[in-house]
Amino acid sequence: MSEDQLLRRLRARLGPSSLIGDDAAILSLSGEIAVTVDSQISGVHFIPSLDAAHVARRLLAVNLSDLAAMGGVGAEPSHAFLALSAPPDFDHDRFFRAFTEACSLWNVTLAGGDLARCDQVVATLTLIGTKPDGGRWLRRSDAKPGHDLWLGGTVGESAAGRILIARGADERHRAVRRHLLPVPQLELGRWLGQQAEGASMDVSDGVAIDLHRLCRESGVGAVIDADVLPLPGGFFDLCKTLSVDPYELALSGGEDYVLLFTLPPGMQPPGCHKIGRILREKKIDWIREGRRRRLPASGWDHLKT
Amino acid sequence: MSEDQLLRRLRARLGPSSLIGDDAAILSLSGEIAVTVDSQISGVHFIPSLDAAHVARRLLAVNLSDLAAMGGVGAEPSHAFLALSAPPDFDHDRFFRAFTEACSLWNVTLAGGDLARCDQVVATLTLIGTKPDGGRWLRRSDAKPGHDLWLGGTVGESAAGRILIARGADERHRAVRRHLLPVPQLELGRWLGQQAEGASMDVSDGVAIDLHRLCRESGVGAVIDADVLPLPGGFFDLCKTLSVDPYELALSGGEDYVLLFTLPPGMQPPGCHKIGRILREKKIDWIREGRRRRLPASGWDHLKT
Repeated sequence: MSEDQLLRRLRARLGPSSLIGDDAAILSLSGEIAVTVDSQISGVHFIPSLDAAHVARRLLAVNLSDLAAMGGVGAEPSHAFLALSAPPDFDHDRFFRAFTEACSLWNVTLAGGDLARCDQVVATLTLIGTKPDGGRWLRRSDAKPGHDLWLGGTVGESAAGRILIARGADERHRAVRRHLLPVPQLELGRWLGQQAEGASMDVSDGVAIDLHRLCRESGVGAVIDADVLPLPGGFFDLCKTLSVDPYELALSGGEDYVLLFTLPPGMQPPGCHKIGRILREKKIDWIREGRRRRLPASGWDHLKT
Repeated sequence: MSEDQLLRRLRARLGPSSLIGDDAAILSLSGEIAVTVDSQISGVHFIPSLDAAHVARRLLAVNLSDLAAMGGVGAEPSHAFLALSAPPDFDHDRFFRAFTEACSLWNVTLAGGDLARCDQVVATLTLIGTKPDGGRWLRRSDAKPGHDLWLGGTVGESAAGRILIARGADERHRAVRRHLLPVPQLELGRWLGQQAEGASMDVSDGVAIDLHRLCRESGVGAVIDADVLPLPGGFFDLCKTLSVDPYELALSGGEDYVLLFTLPPGMQPPGCHKIGRILREKKIDWIREGRRRRLPASGWDHLKT
């Protein structure tokens, strides 16, 4: 299929109000917008044999997770711009079918993009979201000493899924499904945006390194209690089977795509897990079985790993 | 250098008002915006040995050319979001130095992005521009029968430069410079946006294929006069040396990054070249030395070439 043929098919799928067709898309947005960019690259973020439909859904999910971390999205559709570079044998049609379906599900409008040839699949999405009514934008820099530190869901399972996939496992494993299709916490982000205080980010590179980033932006420290880290059921057994340290995986495995956030003490966000608190002193510790030590800023480094 | 180190250095360069640091950048823009996305990929858009500084400047230029085609940009800075995927030996520092310098030159603010590792360099830029005061957005769909068809500058030289580079030539050749660093026609775009009528796009894939796209969007046809095509000085001699057909290169070589646009008859946009006119009948012809024939939709296909 040529580029023009593919675009014609895509526009037919998107309907008559399609924003695609000019050198740029024109958007009429009121007020402030949040803009995020994230890529999925074969051999880096997923194995080259991964179903193109999974690549598409994952690409949208990780970008929506960034908007969730900023305070969710407003009622209007978010706008997506897709740059897809792929080898000739990539199943573009399957990718776009899954991508447009996922867009419908999450109230996202595909508004433009760029297609190119590349030996590796490199899919980059720019997502533009609006602010929910009455909410505020959540920042990494709003953590204050005394705040509780929270996680929006379990950690470590996605990294376990990544290891399982590398060893040939498929989607029958829950960890593999968790890894392949993260669920962006947009509702939690929106709830947090309605609160008067607190910082937020999503855990993409690992709790440890992302906590370091949050603390650096806020000019604070933190202590986390590893004994209350939210871990998925059967996680210790799974880690034993995989011969990996469960705490290393949970703290530094990354790609969890749950929100890491702070709130004044005494609050209980629904379905979330308190894992520690923010300190004035700029050091980051973790406690396990009563022993306190420094938490290294370990995790996924996009330039090194 | 780690990702965090690189980002710290970049933020230091961008200054205290930097928008980088959260999961998304917050922009406060009034009115409509134009959003465009374009990639530069090593081995596809440039040779792998190309200076990282050239890659950076070219990436910004081709995206600005899309905004030029839409009617230029307003007085406020445009906002850029960069997804850069590159192998470990890529000179990130040199890239970012050139990129931020080029941003200053063109009134662009780097507001966010994503860094990743990849075997090939894949640099994708999303650019958000505002509309000039009193102007209108230019569309591909606004060509009307009877309009004159124009080019904003010469064509063919960039493609010649591409061939020269493949044969080992360097920047001492004007064609190589033209290929490596296109100059976005923002001022012309702004001028066109002040006119009441006319369609516009930029020639990225080739005059022939891009004219087919413009005519398809407008539901019209066109005829162009090859004998008045704006060609750079010495172009026929250069093509002879390269053993390529000058008309094929001028009409289908691509990467010219000049504006292809239409205007009601009788107008003379400064520095531009009238090459034909828009027809009601949906066929696209070209005339050379009195002989008229169909113009095939040939050019750069991003999925095939």
